[in-house]
Amino acid sequence: MQNDLIIRAAKGEQVERTPVWVMRQAGRILPEYRELRASLSGFKELVETPDLAAEVTIQPVDILGVDAAIIFSDILVIPDAMGLPYEMIKGKGPHFPETIKSVADIDKLRPIDGSELKYVYDAIEITRKRLNGRVPVIGFAGAPFTIICYMIEGQGSKTFSNARKWLHSEPAASHKLLQKITDATIVYLRHQVNAGVSLFQVFDSWAGVLSEELYREFCIPYLNQIADAIQEVPSIVFSKGAHFAMNDIMQTNYNAVGLDWSLNPAAVRKLNPKKTLQGNLDPTVLYGEEAYVVEKANEMLRSFAGGSHIANLGHGVYPDTDWRKVKLYIDTIKNHTI
Amino acid sequence: MQNDLIIRAAKGEQVERTPVWVMRQAGRILPEYRELRASLSGFKELVETPDLAAEVTIQPVDILGVDAAIIFSDILVIPDAMGLPYEMIKGKGPHFPETIKSVADIDKLRPIDGSELKYVYDAIEITRKRLNGRVPVIGFAGAPFTIICYMIEGQGSKTFSNARKWLHSEPAASHKLLQKITDATIVYLRHQVNAGVSLFQVFDSWAGVLSEELYREFCIPYLNQIADAIQEVPSIVFSKGAHFAMNDIMQTNYNAVGLDWSLNPAAVRKLNPKKTLQGNLDPTVLYGEEAYVVEKANEMLRSFAGGSHIANLGHGVYPDTDWRKVKLYIDTIKNHTI
Repeated sequence: MQNDLIIRAAKGEQVERTPVWVMRQAGRILPEYRELRASLSGFKELVETPDLAAEVTIQPVDILGVDAAIIFSDILVIPDAMGLPYEMIKGKGPHFPETIKSVADIDKLRPIDGSELKYVYDAIEITRKRLNGRVPVIGFAGAPFTIICYMIEGQGSKTFSNARKWLHSEPAASHKLLQKITDATIVYLRHQVNAGVSLFQVFDSWAGVLSEELYREFCIPYLNQIADAIQEVPSIVFSKGAHFAMNDIMQTNYNAVGLDWSLNPAAVRKLNPKKTLQGNLDPTVLYGEEAYVVEKANEMLRSFAGGSHIANLGHGVYPDTDWRKVKLYIDTIKNHTI
Repeated sequence: MQNDLIIRAAKGEQVERTPVWVMRQAGRILPEYRELRASLSGFKELVETPDLAAEVTIQPVDILGVDAAIIFSDILVIPDAMGLPYEMIKGKGPHFPETIKSVADIDKLRPIDGSELKYVYDAIEITRKRLNGRVPVIGFAGAPFTIICYMIEGQGSKTFSNARKWLHSEPAASHKLLQKITDATIVYLRHQVNAGVSLFQVFDSWAGVLSEELYREFCIPYLNQIADAIQEVPSIVFSKGAHFAMNDIMQTNYNAVGLDWSLNPAAVRKLNPKKTLQGNLDPTVLYGEEAYVVEKANEMLRSFAGGSHIANLGHGVYPDTDWRKVKLYIDTIKNHTI
């Protein structure tokens, strides 16, 4: 590997400079992505065609100069593989024609052996071959709680109140569902590692709707099962909005913890100085003037001083961001020696 | 006033028991509300017809036994009065046909003298007369930042990234807009006080999309202007999701601070032990079994021990909640002596 900065930073090893990647770096911010996407029938065609998924995975390496490629896919491939297919509706986001409404629906979900998601591993292998050691490939999966949010709600939501309802009114069934998803996720991530990812991230995108108590009961045990099962490569957990659970998250078995922009890196670092932290520029900073982007990127870097750091945004980059501002952000990080 | 518990608790005075009300208590959880609402052309007809607004304001006092009535209205009446009308679209929420797109759009906004919102003050007066001193009436307004979220975005959003874009790319114009809304809000709340509200709450519903730095620059000064201008009755500020700004919020000039369910009341209380705290049961607890609701309500009460407290939920009650569970929650609070 010519550039293994991110792998070493994730493990807490010494690095010459802070590595940087950007959540949703492969996507709508890039004209090259939009052009390819426009020629296809839909989002799922892109995800499920390894050659094309590899192409858009590599675009930000070529265009933005990031220190890692994250495989182009979706966290919802797991429910899809378990028998609960999703659709991606233009301008609206994910939609599940069938949702989990009863305990019987949980029993109907299929365990996976991994072969259902061969297209992802194929995309990883093609990406890895084409990158030829330039930068590592990051694998990923959704955290079990975030996955059940979609399986129960059937679509995005500001509150995910139906999913939270299950935790309060059907705790045993909720645990059963979370365990099934955890088992499938471990199979899936093991295959990703076999296909050649050098690290992986677990996205708990809707963690923020919970509380410390619920997060401790319904999230931490499953997150830990995943980290414990996949020890071959370093791991990152990103629980967006889970400010109330940072102490627990900083004690999990992940090598690195992602922070959103609402968190103070120095305060989080104190909870466990040995963990690598990832983040956390507010993605809307990238709407600002060039000088402002540079200033805020440098401020962000300084706020992570005193320990291991992987630079990123505090959330996925917003699709209407000018890709040149994203590149400016990345260049600013890369020009800054520790 | 026969029951002035909430006024005394807001001021930090001794009370015989913790007062309780519920955000969105007047609304879809009540069959009596749904029946009235079904007979009308839309949400705005209800808000703008004082006699009907008073009727639904009083419903939760009669049916649920809350310790205060909050006037039935909407935070978006302020942009409406300033020349940016909203619509309420069934199943979708608020929508603005025109939004703020440029500095020129800000200049076009009208200052208000208060007469534009006479229907609200009339509703307050009718409510007060009909209640005849049984419980106080709470007035309210949106916090300036939350109002600009809607004025810029034109509708609800998970990220309000367009509104946040303004803070980074047009800070001077953002301040100008926030000041215009603050001025209008003060005029509006003063009229509410003159019409007879006994306390008021400022809702910063989208505070959680910001950071400590942005909250300090674009929210705190305007929140303080409002609190400083209206000193005749006690005030409550509720900045949902603003965990990063609690220290600043606890130093504002509001008598009471609302907490969402993600916050630890004991930790927040330490930031300023003299403030009254309000909250904070997770509204999805009310989807649980009866015994569970009682247990969690009592746990919540204990978590606020050691200082002044107004019981509430940590967010508005979700519309599909069984009103009997809401009543059980309220009864549990009322049966608990401090």
